[in-house]
Amino acid sequence: MIEMAMAPSNQQTNFSFEHPVTVEFRHRLLFTRGAFRPDNAAFADAMRERGMGATSIAVVIDSGVAEAWPNLGESVAAYCRHHAEALELRMAPLILAGGERVKNGQDYEEVLRLINDAKLCRHSALVAIGGGAVLDAAGYAAAIAHRGIRLVRFPTTTVSQDDSGVGVKNGINAFGKKNYLGTFSVPHAVICDEEFLATLSDRDWSAGFSEAVKVALLKDPDFFNQIEAAAPAIAARNMGAAMPIIRRSAELHLNHIATGGDPFEFTTVRPLDFGHWAAHKLEQLSDFEVSHGEAVGIGIALDVAYCAEIGLLDSDSASRIHRCLAALKLPLSHSLLKSERLLEGIEEFREHLGGELTLSMLSTIGSEHVIHEVDHNAMRRAVANVLNLDAAPKGLSR
Amino acid sequence: MIEMAMAPSNQQTNFSFEHPVTVEFRHRLLFTRGAFRPDNAAFADAMRERGMGATSIAVVIDSGVAEAWPNLGESVAAYCRHHAEALELRMAPLILAGGERVKNGQDYEEVLRLINDAKLCRHSALVAIGGGAVLDAAGYAAAIAHRGIRLVRFPTTTVSQDDSGVGVKNGINAFGKKNYLGTFSVPHAVICDEEFLATLSDRDWSAGFSEAVKVALLKDPDFFNQIEAAAPAIAARNMGAAMPIIRRSAELHLNHIATGGDPFEFTTVRPLDFGHWAAHKLEQLSDFEVSHGEAVGIGIALDVAYCAEIGLLDSDSASRIHRCLAALKLPLSHSLLKSERLLEGIEEFREHLGGELTLSMLSTIGSEHVIHEVDHNAMRRAVANVLNLDAAPKGLSR
Repeated sequence: MIEMAMAPSNQQTNFSFEHPVTVEFRHRLLFTRGAFRPDNAAFADAMRERGMGATSIAVVIDSGVAEAWPNLGESVAAYCRHHAEALELRMAPLILAGGERVKNGQDYEEVLRLINDAKLCRHSALVAIGGGAVLDAAGYAAAIAHRGIRLVRFPTTTVSQDDSGVGVKNGINAFGKKNYLGTFSVPHAVICDEEFLATLSDRDWSAGFSEAVKVALLKDPDFFNQIEAAAPAIAARNMGAAMPIIRRSAELHLNHIATGGDPFEFTTVRPLDFGHWAAHKLEQLSDFEVSHGEAVGIGIALDVAYCAEIGLLDSDSASRIHRCLAALKLPLSHSLLKSERLLEGIEEFREHLGGELTLSMLSTIGSEHVIHEVDHNAMRRAVANVLNLDAAPKGLSR
Repeated sequence: MIEMAMAPSNQQTNFSFEHPVTVEFRHRLLFTRGAFRPDNAAFADAMRERGMGATSIAVVIDSGVAEAWPNLGESVAAYCRHHAEALELRMAPLILAGGERVKNGQDYEEVLRLINDAKLCRHSALVAIGGGAVLDAAGYAAAIAHRGIRLVRFPTTTVSQDDSGVGVKNGINAFGKKNYLGTFSVPHAVICDEEFLATLSDRDWSAGFSEAVKVALLKDPDFFNQIEAAAPAIAARNMGAAMPIIRRSAELHLNHIATGGDPFEFTTVRPLDFGHWAAHKLEQLSDFEVSHGEAVGIGIALDVAYCAEIGLLDSDSASRIHRCLAALKLPLSHSLLKSERLLEGIEEFREHLGGELTLSMLSTIGSEHVIHEVDHNAMRRAVANVLNLDAAPKGLSR
């Protein structure tokens, strides 16, 4: 405690006390297969470690997951019965409609009601099984109930397993703005079960690899080489090729959060948001018909073209990145990029972060370069370039 | 990053990544007088230190404060004009009805609307001027908008200056439960202006000293002696006697948060909640007619009587504490203590904290003693004892 008697003001001495308040959280990320098979102890172990007897839980399941896995609710219940010393399931699972729309309405209030009805306390846990949107809405409810109960995420999509489900954010949309309400909250555990990925549509499958490409471009050139080499096998849905990429992407994202020095993003530098200004705007302009992962792929393709256009990145590297995205069967552009409103996304991105405009760009593959200004004409040329890329037959663009 | 390849499960190796996520916040607490006089630089200095130009702000004022200080809105605006290099006031202040009711409804949504209309970002600040309830509701809105914008609190009551306004919590009521929704959030700054205390009713004035007595009993026997000696002058509203007590109470509360090792209350030990199980229940049973500060005074009187009843605390110390509370013009009991529902408050308190029942009690003045069980019959006798204390003429009970 630093106590200071400061300079007098109006014959009144000011008294000032300053103190750092340090909070240490623990983040657990686990990749497994068949997480709810009774003989897989991973989930029970993650809850048991507290040494305080069984943890009370309630469960939220994404409707898309519930459809693909109709016995999931019963599997979870059977798992809890089998591991009764670690887990006590308090209520039947709540099914929440998947997709971005779950973040627009009052669905998170249903999760709050579940938490209240199940009498969960700050030592209980909400278990959320689903894609990024359901994890965001359920995670928000868990973060504000009782000033934060424990959250266990089971991300079920490529994009939530390799990025969003790993992070320390939650949120819902309000005032027509994405993630206007939310908190920074460290989950108790994130358990990625690769079996959930098998039932994704091809489109949802591919979408998640854009975030792996992004983090590779910013942090790890060798990892980009690895994705490039694995891209055809990933596109063919080879799990053996895909899982190391998903795991490494998740690890790099978590590593950035834990060791990057700013887990709760107090500064305006957001290196992990490369390609995201256009992605957020495109999601919004398409009324979320374009998924987050796809939009990020397009945002990366666009910002890479912009970097080449302003001479920051050499054009061979730009082409390599575009080819890698295409080989992953990610779209490189969208007709809505032609909208005059696209560039509004730059100011909206600045406003959400606050302070000066700060965008991560690339100078080489693996090297981030921060800019504070965007040349709108160069960006319009970059839009034209990526629209051409998608129009060209894939073979030729190599 | 600890990476482990774990024991195989279903021929599947689990991959596990664990990492501590450490977040460092900075808490600033300042006592001053005439905070909005143009020549008092304290507020502007607290905002300027970022070295990023003027901070955009919006202001929420407690209706009780706005009535007592009809020119306050204009003073704040003039202050911002005078310190334009540090502060940019974006909108006219929002007046929120004071008192616990502000935490029951949708008032926090009005604050969210203000934050959105004022286009505040994560580097802007919401300035909340008022008693604990308004600070709680406005602080909650600030904590969830944009995943947390800066909050500057100006607590205007004794109880908010010496305890609640200093802390790292916010909250609103939901499902009929106090503080069901909220977060742990460290304020950017807390500025206590003693001039606001001059217009409090005698009842509100006295109410806040219960929290000073509480923290003294738990942490600092010398401070208890000091309160005991100052009590008659405090009751006579002598500011020179009162301010050192309020400042020391605030300092002890902040010190506990910053150095107690558990600022966000992950464990079930809550030493600062001495006397609070009965206080929360009494507030609820009286439909908040009994204020938080008064209820805490009664809760302390009751738990002190209980400690004496079970032989934990000697009866001379118990009497001293009761006399000190009475000298501060705090009530020692309330007819609602006779309600059969009072003891439900013990289980409700446990549920809110979670895990095993954990209550702080006293073994001597200045020494906390944790218990995990309450003898209901002894507690009923303690209720009878404090009801008798209040019935007795004050002079005689010495």
